[in-house]
Amino acid sequence: MSEDTQREPVAEWLSYREEIRVLDCTIRDGGLMNNSKFSDEVVRGVYDACVAGGVDYMEMGYINSLEQFPPKEYGPWRHCKEDDMRRIVGDNDTPLKLMAMADAEKSDYRTDILPADQSVLDMIRVATYIHQIPLALDMIKDAHDKGYETTLNLMAVSTVPESEVDEALGLLAKSETQAVYVVDSFGSLYMEQVDALVGTFLGYMKDAGIEVGIHCHNNQQLAFANTIQAIVKGANMLDASMAGLGRGAGNCQLELLIGFLHNPKYRLRPVLQCIQEHIEPMREKLGWGYDYPYMITGNLNEHPRSGMAFNESKDRGDIVKFYDQMTEED
Amino acid sequence: MSEDTQREPVAEWLSYREEIRVLDCTIRDGGLMNNSKFSDEVVRGVYDACVAGGVDYMEMGYINSLEQFPPKEYGPWRHCKEDDMRRIVGDNDTPLKLMAMADAEKSDYRTDILPADQSVLDMIRVATYIHQIPLALDMIKDAHDKGYETTLNLMAVSTVPESEVDEALGLLAKSETQAVYVVDSFGSLYMEQVDALVGTFLGYMKDAGIEVGIHCHNNQQLAFANTIQAIVKGANMLDASMAGLGRGAGNCQLELLIGFLHNPKYRLRPVLQCIQEHIEPMREKLGWGYDYPYMITGNLNEHPRSGMAFNESKDRGDIVKFYDQMTEED
Repeated sequence: MSEDTQREPVAEWLSYREEIRVLDCTIRDGGLMNNSKFSDEVVRGVYDACVAGGVDYMEMGYINSLEQFPPKEYGPWRHCKEDDMRRIVGDNDTPLKLMAMADAEKSDYRTDILPADQSVLDMIRVATYIHQIPLALDMIKDAHDKGYETTLNLMAVSTVPESEVDEALGLLAKSETQAVYVVDSFGSLYMEQVDALVGTFLGYMKDAGIEVGIHCHNNQQLAFANTIQAIVKGANMLDASMAGLGRGAGNCQLELLIGFLHNPKYRLRPVLQCIQEHIEPMREKLGWGYDYPYMITGNLNEHPRSGMAFNESKDRGDIVKFYDQMTEED
Repeated sequence: MSEDTQREPVAEWLSYREEIRVLDCTIRDGGLMNNSKFSDEVVRGVYDACVAGGVDYMEMGYINSLEQFPPKEYGPWRHCKEDDMRRIVGDNDTPLKLMAMADAEKSDYRTDILPADQSVLDMIRVATYIHQIPLALDMIKDAHDKGYETTLNLMAVSTVPESEVDEALGLLAKSETQAVYVVDSFGSLYMEQVDALVGTFLGYMKDAGIEVGIHCHNNQQLAFANTIQAIVKGANMLDASMAGLGRGAGNCQLELLIGFLHNPKYRLRPVLQCIQEHIEPMREKLGWGYDYPYMITGNLNEHPRSGMAFNESKDRGDIVKFYDQMTEED
């Protein structure tokens, strides 16, 4: 929160920043809860709501390896084949841009990502851990050269030493990527930490004309708050998902973000309608959302996988047992 | 978030502020969801967990009018009679302080609040809307003269013109109260607004040696974030409740707050245990917590009562219908 904001709150409070982009990742991040096995009806519902709600980008899913994620076990939104996408969106003759994510070391990106002029996709997002940065840079170049917009999403940034973040950002500022994301994979960051990270990212990216993005998880019920904090600090690429659908505790809720943003192009009602008709009916089966095991892993800055396993086990609900397990390991 | 914090994050990040007090309002605010009809077992569970968790104050309930809230319809924690409280806490021979809340125009405070030396209570909190300030000041004086610590909780501050807030704070700074609370009754405030309000409150109270407190509701999943923001700005009295139990969307979750604070006197495990054994088992019946109707009233800066009524009606779940109702009224 800048000093300027405090001195003239009204002037900055009622206006909006034209550069802000809202990116829906319901199907992509939510696919981590059901092996990307969404019905066409659900994907079409999300697509229609994104168009009607004025959302800027929708993530159709992953373009990850058919070998590592065999179609027998994983649904079509783990691979985003052109035919599958076009069955939903046709030629996507709308203002909504479409994107897909490729994971470093999990994607046969050279072969599986078509040239942009043969695809309905507009953007490729590369997800990478810090040690995969050289590979991620090659993936960014590949997608850029094929004609796509690109972003690089640096996962689990809450576990990376600041010196390594600095080194990575120095490399990324010289790359073809058009945005670099702060990704709070474990949902462990507080607003002050998001503020510091976005500030660091912007310090490297601003002169290069590269945008900074934010992708939060809701382990400590801070996904929306941290997204706001990133906006205030200057991040313009904002990830969110309907009803927060995403891995473990889920993501920043799109409905909260759209309720907050002042650009009149964003509309809440179609998003609420999609949530009611398509997303909430999946909650019992998929089981995403704020819950004690995820709160505990987030608080401990650990991957939510142990919380997800606990919630699948017979001990579900015994939150003291999970807390003891997680803290006794030390 | 001060510029200093950004320059030296580590120095301020790992330490803690000795003056901070955590106040549990599980039974009091939660009593708005069940007419304060908690079993002795639940109240004792919360009390034991507060003691074991290092919580500073526990709110036993309201001291509100026996006439307006007849004991046939309301449980004992709407009146906090001495016998009822002592059945749970004995003489409260612990470091935990006990408090009760009296609502302006709903409390026979002169007769129903005993002199402090005859009560197990340590603190009286006076809840007031802006137009009741003169009465609230008399209630504060009454409690202070009887020997209690006092706080004044200015409800629904998100609806009060800033000029009236200023006038009220000028009066309160000259009163006997030991703390003044920013109360986001409708769960509509964003962090920047909390930051501005706490700053304004501190501006009036600091020289008078009066603390500033924060009480948040979770309509937009910002109760914890707004509490953190208030801490950063200088508020020292922090309301929270176990599992967020409170009216509508509920309060700041005590478990999140204790996980955040660095003072080693606070302990998470007993709080989680109480939540597991006593609080979560009540969720289905009491129905508090983040939900779309409360999100919508919070976003519109309105009292949650219409959302609570909707969730009791046959239309529950039809969030588009509720949204249309709330926005078409304009």
